[in-house]
Amino acid sequence: MTQDTICAIATAQGGAIGCIRVSGPEAIAITSRIFTPAATGRKLEDAQPRTLTFGRIYEGEEVIDEVLVSLFRVPHSYTGEDSTEITCHGSIYVLQKVLQLLIKNGCRMAGPGEYTQRAFLNGKMDLSQAEAVADLIASTSAATHRLAMSQMRGGFSQELASLRDQLLHFTSLIELELDFSDHEELEFADRTELCQLADDIEKVISRLTNSFNVGNAIKNGVPVAIIGETNAGKSTLLNVLLNEEKAIVSDIHGTTRDVIEDTVNIGGITFRFIDTAGIRQTSDTIESLGIEHTFQKLNQAAIVLWMIDATDADAQISQLSAQILPATEGKQLILVFNKADLATDAQGISPAGFSDTAKGFPSTVKSIAISAKKREHIDELQQMLISAANLPTVTQSDVIVTNIRHYEALTHALEAIHRVRQGLSDNLSGDFIAQDIRECIFHLSDIAGEVTNDMVLQNIFRHFCIGK
Amino acid sequence: MTQDTICAIATAQGGAIGCIRVSGPEAIAITSRIFTPAATGRKLEDAQPRTLTFGRIYEGEEVIDEVLVSLFRVPHSYTGEDSTEITCHGSIYVLQKVLQLLIKNGCRMAGPGEYTQRAFLNGKMDLSQAEAVADLIASTSAATHRLAMSQMRGGFSQELASLRDQLLHFTSLIELELDFSDHEELEFADRTELCQLADDIEKVISRLTNSFNVGNAIKNGVPVAIIGETNAGKSTLLNVLLNEEKAIVSDIHGTTRDVIEDTVNIGGITFRFIDTAGIRQTSDTIESLGIEHTFQKLNQAAIVLWMIDATDADAQISQLSAQILPATEGKQLILVFNKADLATDAQGISPAGFSDTAKGFPSTVKSIAISAKKREHIDELQQMLISAANLPTVTQSDVIVTNIRHYEALTHALEAIHRVRQGLSDNLSGDFIAQDIRECIFHLSDIAGEVTNDMVLQNIFRHFCIGK
Repeated sequence: MTQDTICAIATAQGGAIGCIRVSGPEAIAITSRIFTPAATGRKLEDAQPRTLTFGRIYEGEEVIDEVLVSLFRVPHSYTGEDSTEITCHGSIYVLQKVLQLLIKNGCRMAGPGEYTQRAFLNGKMDLSQAEAVADLIASTSAATHRLAMSQMRGGFSQELASLRDQLLHFTSLIELELDFSDHEELEFADRTELCQLADDIEKVISRLTNSFNVGNAIKNGVPVAIIGETNAGKSTLLNVLLNEEKAIVSDIHGTTRDVIEDTVNIGGITFRFIDTAGIRQTSDTIESLGIEHTFQKLNQAAIVLWMIDATDADAQISQLSAQILPATEGKQLILVFNKADLATDAQGISPAGFSDTAKGFPSTVKSIAISAKKREHIDELQQMLISAANLPTVTQSDVIVTNIRHYEALTHALEAIHRVRQGLSDNLSGDFIAQDIRECIFHLSDIAGEVTNDMVLQNIFRHFCIGK
Repeated sequence: MTQDTICAIATAQGGAIGCIRVSGPEAIAITSRIFTPAATGRKLEDAQPRTLTFGRIYEGEEVIDEVLVSLFRVPHSYTGEDSTEITCHGSIYVLQKVLQLLIKNGCRMAGPGEYTQRAFLNGKMDLSQAEAVADLIASTSAATHRLAMSQMRGGFSQELASLRDQLLHFTSLIELELDFSDHEELEFADRTELCQLADDIEKVISRLTNSFNVGNAIKNGVPVAIIGETNAGKSTLLNVLLNEEKAIVSDIHGTTRDVIEDTVNIGGITFRFIDTAGIRQTSDTIESLGIEHTFQKLNQAAIVLWMIDATDADAQISQLSAQILPATEGKQLILVFNKADLATDAQGISPAGFSDTAKGFPSTVKSIAISAKKREHIDELQQMLISAANLPTVTQSDVIVTNIRHYEALTHALEAIHRVRQGLSDNLSGDFIAQDIRECIFHLSDIAGEVTNDMVLQNIFRHFCIGK
């Protein structure tokens, strides 16, 4: 039940103008109590929907500000409720004062994402679209923007709706089979068709599930680990990479993501550097302390930069390769020979970077010689990172899963449809199969918010910013 | 000439929603090029003034955002020009993209305060009202808000207009006198009337000029100096006072004021702490280094807190009073006996704070015993600061000068009207007196921006934030 009227400051502090949103059955009446239109005799209540009224906010005799009030009427507003938006000067004092006056006159302070939650509850969008609103606000690159916009416009919702339609059709076929279950010849004909249908559905769900790898890399960054001995220049390299474009990834409040740390945008791709402990070498034995932790973290990485001191390359490679090579299997491994400016030819570092010792490495392993300190060949390393990320160019018509909640629901749906396929092969009774189809539908419906309970909703919207 | 169309992001980064302003003859046409209304067949150009149109911003085939566009037509907009305001999601990427698209389609990036400058140039407000807009945005307290709002609503402008009317009347009387200058008896009758008129005008200008003390203290804070020996606990006290309400004076970007440092709001009054060097005492002689500087800075203070180590009160007072007492004449001097918790009765610190040694001080000098470290009696000290500030409660109908440019112009106007009064007493020729009246009118007109040149305008508006 959304019977109360909520208000919130929807703009960030410190701008030229600020905007306060009011939504709910009393939105227009409450705004009218504190607002006097400039044109004499006018009343806000009489204003046409989607018009702007100029006037003043008063507290008693005192003018708080000269403002513009936008007016929207149910259902033609963002929330689907009666709404006003008060655009005033961007003074903290003014904004707080207007908010206080609204609350004094019957509004309640909105919770995070409460406007979007109401939009969802009033059927203005499904849950996956609502979630995309927060992603859109958080978007900082063309790629994250495209993913969010595609989801907000309902590309994903349409795919889900189509899947559910197919599953419902599937259910009707199963029921048909059950009705005619005494006619054996009919059953076999249906089963072939059902297998084909299950295969098709599984293929689509599988494609969506797999797209999460790309979606997650685009949204949260391609995970990169920099490993190597502590003196190899790991932190120098990290700083060089981060400083290049630090400004672009300045922290953004009030989004679904927490503060981004050690994230850098290279050529439109976000890379997220995983914090790994340095591998310390004492005399001939390698300290085990910290290494286990580092190798655990390595698991999360898609790309591993192995920093090697070029002046000591052969020793470092021979000491660590037995640990590092197995741990980086299936990942993009790049050997980074640092301090290349100090290495002599005798130390075996070729211009392309490869040390003689490393020549026995798998051919998928790339290498480069750089100087992190002198910022030499950093551009080339960045190019290697971009090609190692291997991200496809996405368009707004691509449906790519970026949300871990959706990914989990899809994984469950995939398991269910897989059981359906298996049940058909094993010639299980239609009753069992129908149960798995229902489960598959349930998980897909969960994404769109059709079966979602209050707790899940609260959890989703509390990550939104207030005012959205 | 304001023939081009400007655009700017008017909201701060990081909110749920963002707003981009477009103003100028091409505002609606350029916005229309990148915006497609949701309702098919509709065109933004056909929208009624002061309406909101929902639709999408496109870059080619790609949707950048779903937005609301407000439309205003000349002269009924903030700038007095055709204008649009695009309200979109608060994503940095989206906002930048929309701005880029507007620029690509013929807009120019607005300079700081350019919207308000256009409003002034188009006669929507006078210059003192335009300046008040920046003050309003920067306002953080009820008092600063009231002053800015009063000025923005034109209270000051009306006073100035009334003064100019009187001065023009004055000129006409002088001309009358000049016309009848061969009739001696007439002249004397006029001179008495003229003297009275000059007195009246001088009184008003003088009141306005004097109000700057209050206005400046409210706007920029009451200047307080904390002096005393380095070991007396000055910085501890400063930190205690600042930490109490630090959050309220968080730095505000894009306003007329630079970043506020060491400013604290106590009981609705802003106090600004002046950075003074500590007075170092070596053996019996006092180092002269730094002291001269401290006494110079002391000049700016309205209130002086003299920190005295209560455990060493008599020695510190006898050593410094010869320097401090003359330097603080006409200021509010408060003796702050710190470390009072460590002082014994024998050291002569009474509960009210006064040391025996200090009993010979002028009766205007107040005193208090505190412990900065233990935060004891800080509330009482704050109360003493509030009553020492002695600021009147202002209302929105009070006309108080807060702007240094206005203060300077008023000072010049005051000098001119003073010369007029003197000239009348000295029986100078009407020609000379008329010249001084014209100068007085000139300076008053300068405040409203009637005679202001481009350079002065640029200087005023470059302190505004972009988007206002």
